[in-house]
Amino acid sequence: MIEVEVKGYADDSIFERVREEFELMRKEHHEDTYYQHPCRDFAETDEALRIRIRRFDGHFEAFLTYKGPKLDSTSKTREEIEVPINDPDEHTRILEALGFREVLTVEKVREKYYVEKGITITLDEVEGLGKFIEAEAVTEDRDKVPELVERLKRLLLELGVTRFERRSYLELLLEKEG
Amino acid sequence: MIEVEVKGYADDSIFERVREEFELMRKEHHEDTYYQHPCRDFAETDEALRIRIRRFDGHFEAFLTYKGPKLDSTSKTREEIEVPINDPDEHTRILEALGFREVLTVEKVREKYYVEKGITITLDEVEGLGKFIEAEAVTEDRDKVPELVERLKRLLLELGVTRFERRSYLELLLEKEG
Repeated sequence: MIEVEVKGYADDSIFERVREEFELMRKEHHEDTYYQHPCRDFAETDEALRIRIRRFDGHFEAFLTYKGPKLDSTSKTREEIEVPINDPDEHTRILEALGFREVLTVEKVREKYYVEKGITITLDEVEGLGKFIEAEAVTEDRDKVPELVERLKRLLLELGVTRFERRSYLELLLEKEG
Repeated sequence: MIEVEVKGYADDSIFERVREEFELMRKEHHEDTYYQHPCRDFAETDEALRIRIRRFDGHFEAFLTYKGPKLDSTSKTREEIEVPINDPDEHTRILEALGFREVLTVEKVREKYYVEKGITITLDEVEGLGKFIEAEAVTEDRDKVPELVERLKRLLLELGVTRFERRSYLELLLEKEG
């Protein structure tokens, strides 16, 4: 599965427009901890390894996710491999024993909206970074990616986005820190 | 938790003695796949990373296990961190994306017997290696390890074991191959 994502900077009025226009699917709290590879520089290879703890409606779920390098030069499209994990603390202990080191934890409140079959919009309020909007589609077909990227960009432009961002929240937070 | 284990070579008569004397807890089939670290030589550091698929009574369970180096010079005692995993195939994909490489798969039929509170005996029929017997105890207290090791050795000697083995099945299979 290829996740096609286009992200832009947002503000109150863009958030309001989305909330009025589209149907809320769910609101979640994410605590994402990113890890450094013991011998590969993820910043250079453009990969990421993450443990996400997702809370919503009193539930709690955790996932281990590998993100491969971006597949094109304009969108955030990349290959993802994700598995649910039952015990994030013990899983973290295994990662640390293998030499993976915690880089940073990104916390955010995420609202997810349904646009149409296969397309969603996400409003993120990220601790330390502010408001972002993301349009997302999934496809199995790599050839369809450029067309989908254009489609998602148009959607964000129509909602008032003036500045796109390809960097991840992790990258943005690391740059802010540095 | 520290797992104290003492292992020896077995034969039909030792297997029969255990089957007559102790109570069978369960019989399982294990398919253990071991991985090489992307930049650490596990053979040198005496660590291991394993995905175990366990089948018993029509059930199926999978675990990811990290094993730390042996803690003493006579037993197989080491620290273990183990988590259940839901999707061993996807988990394997993540490990491979991170640069872990499959070393070998060890298949065995294992029978586990109850000796007394805290002590079990395991009969292993390992593909390509033959019959082994293992006595096992668990403790939280590192100081109790030497005493437990002696105890388990005596138990195996009484059952007819004449040759002990500290090396793992993985090590034995790799040496056979080499």
